[in-house]
Amino acid sequence: MSNSKASLTAIPLGGLGEFGMNMMALRYGDDIIVIDSGMMFPESELLGVDLVIPDITYLKQNRAHVRAILLTHGHEDHIGGLSYILRDLNVPVYGTRFTLALAKKRLEEAGLLQSTKLREVLPGRKVELGPFEIEFIAVTHSTIDCVALAVRTPVGVIIHTGDFKIDQTPVDGAPFDLHAFARYGNEGVLALFSDSTNVERPGFTPSERVVVPRLEELCRMAPRKVVLSCFASSIHRIQQVIEIAQRVGRKIAFVGRSMVDNVEIAHSMDCLRIPDGIVVRPQDIRSFDQKRLIVLASGSQAEPMSSLSRIAVDNHRFVTVDENDTVILSARIIPGNDKAIFRMLDHMFRRRALVYYDNSGGTIHVSGHASQEEQKLVLQLVRPRYFIPIHGEYRQLFRHAALAHQLGVVSGEILLIEDGQPIEFTADGARRIEPVTAGRVCVDSGSLEEIEEVVIRDRKHLSEDGIVVPIIAIDKHTGKLESQPEIVTRGFLPSDNGQEIVAGARDVILRTVEQSNAEEKTDWSVIKEKIRVDMKKYISKQTSKRPLILPVILEV
Amino acid sequence: MSNSKASLTAIPLGGLGEFGMNMMALRYGDDIIVIDSGMMFPESELLGVDLVIPDITYLKQNRAHVRAILLTHGHEDHIGGLSYILRDLNVPVYGTRFTLALAKKRLEEAGLLQSTKLREVLPGRKVELGPFEIEFIAVTHSTIDCVALAVRTPVGVIIHTGDFKIDQTPVDGAPFDLHAFARYGNEGVLALFSDSTNVERPGFTPSERVVVPRLEELCRMAPRKVVLSCFASSIHRIQQVIEIAQRVGRKIAFVGRSMVDNVEIAHSMDCLRIPDGIVVRPQDIRSFDQKRLIVLASGSQAEPMSSLSRIAVDNHRFVTVDENDTVILSARIIPGNDKAIFRMLDHMFRRRALVYYDNSGGTIHVSGHASQEEQKLVLQLVRPRYFIPIHGEYRQLFRHAALAHQLGVVSGEILLIEDGQPIEFTADGARRIEPVTAGRVCVDSGSLEEIEEVVIRDRKHLSEDGIVVPIIAIDKHTGKLESQPEIVTRGFLPSDNGQEIVAGARDVILRTVEQSNAEEKTDWSVIKEKIRVDMKKYISKQTSKRPLILPVILEV
Repeated sequence: MSNSKASLTAIPLGGLGEFGMNMMALRYGDDIIVIDSGMMFPESELLGVDLVIPDITYLKQNRAHVRAILLTHGHEDHIGGLSYILRDLNVPVYGTRFTLALAKKRLEEAGLLQSTKLREVLPGRKVELGPFEIEFIAVTHSTIDCVALAVRTPVGVIIHTGDFKIDQTPVDGAPFDLHAFARYGNEGVLALFSDSTNVERPGFTPSERVVVPRLEELCRMAPRKVVLSCFASSIHRIQQVIEIAQRVGRKIAFVGRSMVDNVEIAHSMDCLRIPDGIVVRPQDIRSFDQKRLIVLASGSQAEPMSSLSRIAVDNHRFVTVDENDTVILSARIIPGNDKAIFRMLDHMFRRRALVYYDNSGGTIHVSGHASQEEQKLVLQLVRPRYFIPIHGEYRQLFRHAALAHQLGVVSGEILLIEDGQPIEFTADGARRIEPVTAGRVCVDSGSLEEIEEVVIRDRKHLSEDGIVVPIIAIDKHTGKLESQPEIVTRGFLPSDNGQEIVAGARDVILRTVEQSNAEEKTDWSVIKEKIRVDMKKYISKQTSKRPLILPVILEV
Repeated sequence: MSNSKASLTAIPLGGLGEFGMNMMALRYGDDIIVIDSGMMFPESELLGVDLVIPDITYLKQNRAHVRAILLTHGHEDHIGGLSYILRDLNVPVYGTRFTLALAKKRLEEAGLLQSTKLREVLPGRKVELGPFEIEFIAVTHSTIDCVALAVRTPVGVIIHTGDFKIDQTPVDGAPFDLHAFARYGNEGVLALFSDSTNVERPGFTPSERVVVPRLEELCRMAPRKVVLSCFASSIHRIQQVIEIAQRVGRKIAFVGRSMVDNVEIAHSMDCLRIPDGIVVRPQDIRSFDQKRLIVLASGSQAEPMSSLSRIAVDNHRFVTVDENDTVILSARIIPGNDKAIFRMLDHMFRRRALVYYDNSGGTIHVSGHASQEEQKLVLQLVRPRYFIPIHGEYRQLFRHAALAHQLGVVSGEILLIEDGQPIEFTADGARRIEPVTAGRVCVDSGSLEEIEEVVIRDRKHLSEDGIVVPIIAIDKHTGKLESQPEIVTRGFLPSDNGQEIVAGARDVILRTVEQSNAEEKTDWSVIKEKIRVDMKKYISKQTSKRPLILPVILEV
């Protein structure tokens, strides 16, 4: 791609074409800054993969030029890739206080905290990085301390919204900085990159405060304790539940590692107001008056080892759900998690709990992302020359582009691009340039190792049809079989006709070896391949299955 | 369980506690009838499993007493288990004309058509089977020729709704037989078993006809051809699309095996009116005027080999989707399929098609199941002594029970039960009796073989951590190693440090064998276990992974 000094290039590396793993690089001459470093959870086809991050080949190739990573907020799809990416690319990380606190936690776990420079920024303030001047603009979202970025470059101003909604009555009193957007819009914005997540929703996303009446009603009328689950990063929601607890005369217990961690972090920063004496320790839950208790638990997505999952099957050290307890799922049911979540809630129903999981009786959850009218408002305020939808699957980017088109406020062009398609901005305008390497990298969270595609392909094969390992020992001098063929199988044969098929498979091997000539017998690779082919034919005929077949020849 | 002559027992075997594989047995003395014989699609954890059917151990144990299987309608979750269950239990199958036609197709494929007695029934007519007199009652649903059952027994009348909604303006003019429900309600009904699928939806489910205005608008204004996908069993929907095609001056092409099959069957029975000259053959689609064409394709759930999936990636023999083509997904996006469906639609968006997939701009799909008001209506009409919610996950059964409770029309008891929990009805009332074997059986659709749980467990293990097979050849007389240890792995090692780990693993084996005494060396099972344990320790330390380890010893 071009390295021309007079051009600015935006290089999307993640989040354009998928939901999650958000990352975008901006390059001017020899200076690169990276916005966000997210991860996403793997689809179920990615067997044994713990998480997925963007392919950063482009950044590694330009290692010397990368000046910093700038974080918009602390959600996993914006900071979850940090631990992996900083191992390859040790650059300073900029973010607001709460965002950095969450990032710190992860870097600590990965042993990277010492080696990483963390630079705290304040909404409304500016940072200079080479040719870039970045203003951090306060926006509202489902977590706290979120910012959009205005990046001033020699070619013009870029606005990157991060994730946002326009909450006119934010719980923490920190409003969406409409004026900053208006100011840049007045001055003239080269390009707007804006969040597309909720583009399918008409109207305005309700304020976070909208959940209060129904949650308060449920907590007030609950005959026994309330177990409420929300995302552990939803500090606004947690704040409101604490205040509800106070109003209805209940105490509150925090349960689950991420819930406890985040509450601690937010509280230590004065981002969460917890009245004295309102907290009950987890170990005291059992003995506390069940009518005066709210348990705030993480695990709203029914993650296998999470508190809520364990509570549901009566496998939690401190919390049970019993008859007439109230269970409130105050979170989105993320597509793909629905089966697990409903399985979990079914356990609660079986225990005769009162279970609330949707907005049918009153709002118990609102989204943190802008709906169409808010997206239009941002487009109207910024009225950019170029508009590039970000953060969404292709149809969402497409519909966001269509929305902008309908509005008619983009003076130049609406650019619908996906990961790896850079846009070059010059004085003359914007154009797509040659794609860079981009894609998804599968990671094992234990070893932090990349899991290669061939390994996942093998696992998929193994998982569907199992494996057959035919083994023979051959005398390396005479080429004679020195043992009975051995057949090992897994994940494949039904036990009732397994022995018969294995016996037949032994005969196949013997025949294959017998029918090979002397030359073939001394070339193990030929013999192996012949065994593989014959075995495959035999097994497919006997069972109509296609297990992985891995012949082994031992030289004795 | 009790075999008392004076009692009627209802034995739910599937569909109470899960969505799909519906099956319920009714027993009076030595006579058993079975209502429906469904299957369900496996959850993604069930690796390599093609479909799931109810465990019919109870029916096999009472083989001599099973008189018949009665089908309520032709959906897979009601007839999809027939081919598997009839192999074990050769009994006559009763159903309406269209239902039996669909069942025939499946039995033919399974080679069971000759040996199965199919008995056609008519809505409004009665059939006697031992002590049971069964009336088939016409109901409306998303497919045609659907019935509820009224089963008269010496203990009282049982009503089983099958799947239903109350469509006041059915496309085929065959109304929901409210009068039959009223008549039985007047007479007195012992127990009502009713569909719970849509219990979470307030109000009435709209009539199937409600989709016409929007679908007609889209087909009329489409700048080029329309590719519309719905369930192949949605004969009403297909009928309406045919009529729309006629009104807007387009021809229609049917694409996809199930779509073509079902259209043929329904047409041959006069259940589908296809005007002369309106059909375009698939092979003529390309050459036909693209502005005058509607393609009706199966594959609305993005099933991997379906027509719509193949069209989306330009891999269909006859159909492409090009710029300005209109794509309409006129079907529910079934939870669990959403990722695949949106991936498919994204391909359509990338081809610059106009894609419609939800009801936001006007209704393009309606459900076939009763919402709360219809469920209340049926409860009011039947006003049974006992009420048992069926067809749903536990929370849906629970909420249906709560709905009935709120209504107050059940004079006796509302019984919330799951698969395997029989209810015994006598003159004195109803009671739960000892559970029978019930559960899910995983089936391989190729071989029709049951897949055992241990095999699925192994596959899960293989799919997450892969497999390691350490192999040695030992002289059976001397106990001496006769070869270098061989290590075969799959789905496990990253290539970059794979060789190193394999070399280390070889050393582990050599050491383990060396350190064993003469006795151990002649007992292969001891040596194997020692190798397994040492290898597991070594690999877990090196990689923090836990692959399946399967040591093999060859005697030479």
